[in-house]
Amino acid sequence: MAGGYGITDCPIARALDIVGEKWSLLILRDLFRKGPLRFQGLAEGLPGIAPNTLSARLKLLETQGVIEARLYENHPPRYEYLLTEKGRSLAPVLKALYKWGETCS
Amino acid sequence: MAGGYGITDCPIARALDIVGEKWSLLILRDLFRKGPLRFQGLAEGLPGIAPNTLSARLKLLETQGVIEARLYENHPPRYEYLLTEKGRSLAPVLKALYKWGETCS
Repeated sequence: MAGGYGITDCPIARALDIVGEKWSLLILRDLFRKGPLRFQGLAEGLPGIAPNTLSARLKLLETQGVIEARLYENHPPRYEYLLTEKGRSLAPVLKALYKWGETCS
Repeated sequence: MAGGYGITDCPIARALDIVGEKWSLLILRDLFRKGPLRFQGLAEGLPGIAPNTLSARLKLLETQGVIEARLYENHPPRYEYLLTEKGRSLAPVLKALYKWGETCS
């Protein structure tokens, strides 16, 4: 939290460009909690998310190396999603949010 | 990060309902880093934010008790914004994001 960063080179802004959206962090929460999940399993854990929003978030998280799509069926091709090492290194962020959220009633 | 929470009673979801948006966390970052700020000072630190977005985020954070608006001029009434105790208790979230963002190049 040192000063002197512009919006583009601040580590917090950089982190938020990747995970600074509610659904993205909830997707990661579910992958932490439940392990690899298929699209349908993710959708069921996130009531209210539009399928195209879920697709877009998964694509962004995959492009950013936070999650990985793994083929679990060839015909037709179907994927499940799991955290990469970079994704697992977000655990302290989710823990801090959890702890803070517990104090909000 | 225990399991068994629905989307509404999960502490992470609750936290994200308040701060789960990129600009909100960047507003808090700037208040942590620079202390109380006026609307214009906040806008200058967040290039690209639309004034009505900044207003809406400030209003939400104030309603949620995360920041406080303090009158610094009476005629015309002008406000500066500062963190409340609840807002300051978000420091671990920002620190975790900072640390993770540092590892993203």
